[in-house]
Amino acid sequence: MEPFEIGIIGGTGGIGRWFADFFKGEGYIVHVSGRRTGMNPDDMARICGVVIVSVPINVTMAVIQEIGPLMKEDALLMDFTSLKGEPVRAMLGSSRSEVMGCHPLFGPDVPSMEGLNIVLCPARVDRWKGWPEDVFKKKGAHVFETTPEKHDEMMSVIQALNHLDTIVMGLALRETGIDPAELKKFATPIFSTKLAIIGKVCATNPRLYADIITGNPDISRITEIYERSLSRLKETIEKNDSEGLAELIKNGYHG
Amino acid sequence: MEPFEIGIIGGTGGIGRWFADFFKGEGYIVHVSGRRTGMNPDDMARICGVVIVSVPINVTMAVIQEIGPLMKEDALLMDFTSLKGEPVRAMLGSSRSEVMGCHPLFGPDVPSMEGLNIVLCPARVDRWKGWPEDVFKKKGAHVFETTPEKHDEMMSVIQALNHLDTIVMGLALRETGIDPAELKKFATPIFSTKLAIIGKVCATNPRLYADIITGNPDISRITEIYERSLSRLKETIEKNDSEGLAELIKNGYHG
Repeated sequence: MEPFEIGIIGGTGGIGRWFADFFKGEGYIVHVSGRRTGMNPDDMARICGVVIVSVPINVTMAVIQEIGPLMKEDALLMDFTSLKGEPVRAMLGSSRSEVMGCHPLFGPDVPSMEGLNIVLCPARVDRWKGWPEDVFKKKGAHVFETTPEKHDEMMSVIQALNHLDTIVMGLALRETGIDPAELKKFATPIFSTKLAIIGKVCATNPRLYADIITGNPDISRITEIYERSLSRLKETIEKNDSEGLAELIKNGYHG
Repeated sequence: MEPFEIGIIGGTGGIGRWFADFFKGEGYIVHVSGRRTGMNPDDMARICGVVIVSVPINVTMAVIQEIGPLMKEDALLMDFTSLKGEPVRAMLGSSRSEVMGCHPLFGPDVPSMEGLNIVLCPARVDRWKGWPEDVFKKKGAHVFETTPEKHDEMMSVIQALNHLDTIVMGLALRETGIDPAELKKFATPIFSTKLAIIGKVCATNPRLYADIITGNPDISRITEIYERSLSRLKETIEKNDSEGLAELIKNGYHG
């Protein structure tokens, strides 16, 4: 494969920056583009062999529509969005380049991709078929391919349901009015873990999590399932039926 | 302090066994009593300087009523129950001995008590005032005293709300019908952590968690708060109001 340069739009923060550092560490020349800094995205599309869109979900479509038409036919257009259906369709429609959706299933707080999952959605690939899978696998990531539809279905649980659960507990905790310092004195290991997750979801990037939830095509179904599960629990608790509750708890195991 | 022996009723499994090993490691002579094995609880009450009740919540009262009257006046009666109000009242009422409720805020899966929390509720203490605090602190535990009422109020959040949240997610996950093996392929670090917590709560000892929830005096209030938090979230999601949802998510931070 001939030498090529990588452009990351949104490479000055979050997961974009993380991957900019990663690719540099692998010996690539990486250009990054922030809101007001770095290489112009249009120039990137014209120059780079690989362009990766890593901007907030709510501006992803606009960025793809802008740079798609400028991409070279033998270049690769990718995105890191947490949902894959819409972005992949937009990348296919707006460009004539090769297209591969990508979702690294971790945040920028991890030290390496070793042992972590990365999903690829190859949509129009030829010369870029084996890349970036080879690069990621060499570093110990679990890489696998799927369709955008299957990805988004899984994310309705892995992300939407999971974050919904975290946020409900966070809101409920606040509403109890209990002093956070007191909570820590009485904390169990499980509670401390939950508190750390709540902190991560609710404090670091609320808009990202909001977009992940509202943008998921299955979110109404997930919310309904969650509500129904809570009702079943509540009913058993109200009857003070500890034996019945134990049976219900057993049903929650998903192994 | 004169030499004394420790008796643990329910010392053949779970947290009772863990503390039997712990006290042995500290040089104490420890007697344990299982359902059909070990020293008879009545003998324990007559012989031991310290007797600790560490049986399932639903039989705790019966055990206390049985051994309380047999306890020596200068001995110490303790319990490890996850709730403190009822057991401490029962220990005070059924015995003439010294009484101290205790709740180790961890399970038997931890390697040591270093850095973990232990609550003590001294209810009628004189010669046993400094024990077991000294023993636990020497091993790096964070030990602090509170009333049974304050303890149970905190547990309505640390345990009841926390486990409720875990179980709702477990039940919802099962209802989505997604294959667990598939889930692991797509898992993020947060999701994997949640899955491990669900496994622990739903698979290891469902009856314990059921009793912790139904037995908490504040459980109706907690369930209502949780339901209300979910409703607020659902409303915002239904309006597809990502900005409003982000605001709500911020409110979930409890730091």
